[in-house]
Amino acid sequence: MKQTLAVDMDEVLADPVTKMCDWYARDYGVSITAADLQGHALSALVPPERSHIFHDYLNTPGFFRDLPLLPDAVTVMERLNEKYELFIVSAAMEFPNSLKDKYDWLGEYFPFLHWQQICLCGSKVIIQTDIIIDDRSRNFVRHRGRKLLFTAHHNVLEKECERVNNWQEVASLLL
Amino acid sequence: MKQTLAVDMDEVLADPVTKMCDWYARDYGVSITAADLQGHALSALVPPERSHIFHDYLNTPGFFRDLPLLPDAVTVMERLNEKYELFIVSAAMEFPNSLKDKYDWLGEYFPFLHWQQICLCGSKVIIQTDIIIDDRSRNFVRHRGRKLLFTAHHNVLEKECERVNNWQEVASLLL
Repeated sequence: MKQTLAVDMDEVLADPVTKMCDWYARDYGVSITAADLQGHALSALVPPERSHIFHDYLNTPGFFRDLPLLPDAVTVMERLNEKYELFIVSAAMEFPNSLKDKYDWLGEYFPFLHWQQICLCGSKVIIQTDIIIDDRSRNFVRHRGRKLLFTAHHNVLEKECERVNNWQEVASLLL
Repeated sequence: MKQTLAVDMDEVLADPVTKMCDWYARDYGVSITAADLQGHALSALVPPERSHIFHDYLNTPGFFRDLPLLPDAVTVMERLNEKYELFIVSAAMEFPNSLKDKYDWLGEYFPFLHWQQICLCGSKVIIQTDIIIDDRSRNFVRHRGRKLLFTAHHNVLEKECERVNNWQEVASLLL
């Protein structure tokens, strides 16, 4: 039997951060640079009274529908889909207006995935797979498989996890 | 730590079957009775050329938004939510237009559930909890916890599973 592999969406397959920064610049006239982001949550970089704005952006219908792909995500995922029992596992339930957009986005860029392979959840504590790739180490706490932390701006200072910096590194490790 | 408990939605918390039969009667002038349903899939009770119609109904925006509750579901779930780490796990991804409706329906009838407790998935093979309540025994195949088959018209002839016939029986077993 193939090993099961769970792959996160945001900041792993898709880039929502650039769009959040673009919208923030549009609305407040303030640029957040890549250098600003290193080691920080986006909400920590803005005045406290604006920290809700990113949640509002993420729950805007359409926000997730046209996000850019991370480099090599499609080609590596297509090969992983041959070797593993592959699942998309995204903690999307915090943003209920994102659910259909995420489904449609996956259908557009990953047409080789079946609907049975998509899981839009709240907490990931009930997800158990042989391997998980995620940019949030909080999703590893109760996971019993191999955990691969996908590098994202907010996790660059974390030292504890096995890390993959990009999809080519995922390919080297898992294919 | 509390035990984890996964609870299915359709034919466990909500009744989609009555509405499917109502819509079928509206569209084709044919009544499907409770007696007809016993031991059968709905799609097996109609001519093969119409077997797709139930999928179409289930993917109609709004279909899941106003489904009736099964008796005692809310009161028993509210108590289960105190005793267990409770999750809603629904294989909703086959019907992408149902996702937001299901989220909103849960918010209306189960306001004590947090978004972190909701999981709308495709296959349930990556879900592992201490206990699962589901009307589809196919969802038990790779589950390693205690499995409770919630009686529904289509599963009445199945003999292999530990069974609960209604929410009062769930309360007796788990509370």
